[in-house]
Amino acid sequence: MSTTASPGPIILTNNKSGEITLWVTFVIFFLSPLFFILVGLQVHTRKRSFHYINATIAIISALNYYKMASGGGWKLVSQGDKLVNGEVHEIFRQVYYEHYVNWSMCTPLTIFQTAILSGMSWKDVAIFVLATEGLIQTGWVGALEENVTNKFVWWGFSILFLIWVVYSMLWIGGQAVKLQHYRVNWLYIVVVGGGAALMIAYPVLFLLGEGFGVVSVGTEQIIYSILDILARVPLGFLLIYVNEFTGDNFHLDLLPESLT
Amino acid sequence: MSTTASPGPIILTNNKSGEITLWVTFVIFFLSPLFFILVGLQVHTRKRSFHYINATIAIISALNYYKMASGGGWKLVSQGDKLVNGEVHEIFRQVYYEHYVNWSMCTPLTIFQTAILSGMSWKDVAIFVLATEGLIQTGWVGALEENVTNKFVWWGFSILFLIWVVYSMLWIGGQAVKLQHYRVNWLYIVVVGGGAALMIAYPVLFLLGEGFGVVSVGTEQIIYSILDILARVPLGFLLIYVNEFTGDNFHLDLLPESLT
Amino acid sequence: MSTTASPGPIILTNNKSGEITLWVTFVIFFLSPLFFILVGLQVHTRKRSFHYINATIAIISALNYYKMASGGGWKLVSQGDKLVNGEVHEIFRQVYYEHYVNWSMCTPLTIFQTAILSGMSWKDVAIFVLATEGLIQTGWVGALEENVTNKFVWWGFSILFLIWVVYSMLWIGGQAVKLQHYRVNWLYIVVVGGGAALMIAYPVLFLLGEGFGVVSVGTEQIIYSILDILARVPLGFLLIYVNEFTGDNFHLDLLPESLT
Repeated sequence: MSTTASPGPIILTNNKSGEITLWVTFVIFFLSPLFFILVGLQVHTRKRSFHYINATIAIISALNYYKMASGGGWKLVSQGDKLVNGEVHEIFRQVYYEHYVNWSMCTPLTIFQTAILSGMSWKDVAIFVLATEGLIQTGWVGALEENVTNKFVWWGFSILFLIWVVYSMLWIGGQAVKLQHYRVNWLYIVVVGGGAALMIAYPVLFLLGEGFGVVSVGTEQIIYSILDILARVPLGFLLIYVNEFTGDNFHLDLLPESLT
Repeated sequence: MSTTASPGPIILTNNKSGEITLWVTFVIFFLSPLFFILVGLQVHTRKRSFHYINATIAIISALNYYKMASGGGWKLVSQGDKLVNGEVHEIFRQVYYEHYVNWSMCTPLTIFQTAILSGMSWKDVAIFVLATEGLIQTGWVGALEENVTNKFVWWGFSILFLIWVVYSMLWIGGQAVKLQHYRVNWLYIVVVGGGAALMIAYPVLFLLGEGFGVVSVGTEQIIYSILDILARVPLGFLLIYVNEFTGDNFHLDLLPESLT
Repeated sequence: MSTTASPGPIILTNNKSGEITLWVTFVIFFLSPLFFILVGLQVHTRKRSFHYINATIAIISALNYYKMASGGGWKLVSQGDKLVNGEVHEIFRQVYYEHYVNWSMCTPLTIFQTAILSGMSWKDVAIFVLATEGLIQTGWVGALEENVTNKFVWWGFSILFLIWVVYSMLWIGGQAVKLQHYRVNWLYIVVVGGGAALMIAYPVLFLLGEGFGVVSVGTEQIIYSILDILARVPLGFLLIYVNEFTGDNFHLDLLPESLT
């Protein structure tokens, strides 16, 4: 930063509403595991896969949101020079890379649950989950990249992974789920309808935020928080009540028998 | 560090005894895999799970202790201002984060072995191991955090995980092991008696060292080294001789049959 | 770097041929997954293990080579003072640590495929893959280490792992594969003949490059790129045509059946 010209750099940071949003999201994710686990205790131990996975996702999210809410998990990233009021300023944007730490762990788990619900083959599950990790990792590199061309190439790589993720959700999963009971099929359509819309919303926000700088840092935090809550909590709710929603017609989530 | 006031910062670093301890611990962990493997070669290949896991733990520990003994693996962490001889000094403490690199790999493996010994269900094994990883990761963030409030909140998160770990050890594992032969039960009580005491000793040392600064960096290294050796070597010894200690009544450690 | 004496530091960086090589290697790895997948689509879904693993390896390699080709993934590492034209200069070398990021993910996958081909036991597969990861990780620490003694000790640790890797390839794998059809045996000899030669070539280049500085940064990139291409593409080719090469006598690569 010491190398910028005399007009001085402009630093775009989070605002009050963005900070409050991070705290509120922390509290939601901190409390929701209690709900997932309490509901889990009502069902047989072999039927608790989704309860435990969603509790794990929420705990990881709570810790990462605490990190951001308490003032950490970000880095200033140069966005190049811009002409403001007749003077050239270097623009720095506060990028919360902690979101990527969070997504790199939680999103593959969410996708794994979607895959299990569909009943796709283990091979397709593995590729689906790996492609999701590829999407997050390439987006992460893009978010911290300061060279504009490279930033968009990395974003492009993440879009290639996204295409596979959405194709897996809608087509591979959609075909596999047809072999199950019609009520599982119906639940799956609800899950991937929301899921695919959310998966596309993230890179669009990336483009408008870190990409073109149209969306402010504070607004970006509010939207990412809403997307994260929508992707984790209602989906978790649908999955932990899978027996109720499908009339006990879903059996691919059974945990293995005890060791003893 | 350039922003501190004229009295200058006080930097708390490791001392001679602390350095010698790191070297000695390196040598112990470097040699102990030989012992685990030589004993393993005496038994049937399907009975070597604990020999291989303990050798892996010791090799990882040796490499991380070499890193610290040879002068790396630490960072200076500000511990705020303190009044010393009538002057205000900023205090920096040498924090060996390499311990966390080490624990993040070795402690879940140790816990995994305890879980296998107890015969708890795979679901409980998975949660037990994940909670252990949560304990280490949140402790790691706390150790490098410079804000005092945040440091203690992260320590608090790690205590929440610790409560689950100790509960899993004593209650879940204790219930499961009762279904096995009484000699396995007896061995498990020895293992988790020592294990639970050690697991509680670590965060107490954290509080006295990085937390309140009561224990010096050198003494901290000596105590961490002793705890690590106690947690890995005698436990490894008990587990590789599980057949002798239980009179061949433990069978949950069998490796899968060959591919061919 | 501001602390070096008046003659100023000498900085050894990549050259034009090294940069072009990184771009060419990126293109080769970016295109090769298409080939692996198209060939995979010709065979039954249960026979596609090697197609998918090799496509994954190539995708990861392409992303890491893009990172390096586009100007990132390196760090300047001090190599100590050297007498040049009667003056003492501190030498800094551009070390592309991104190679280690790449190898840490791809090399264990390559080794895993070799292990599967041999038909060694799961225990031997696990130790083989872990030793490979140990080789990469200790090499990585050595590459970024600035103290000469420590650098060679880390290189020595990686050689200990290498010895196990080569022993596993030639002896353990060689014994196991004899239980299979003679054509699998023959293919395995070709694979590990090339594989062992390549595995030894890497640390030799490390010694000549980062170690003694005999090989320039540009030449190092050219050789690493050639080694990476040789280790991934011809091996991938041999494995995806395993049925053709062995006359349908290899069956250890079958993917598990569908979930539904």
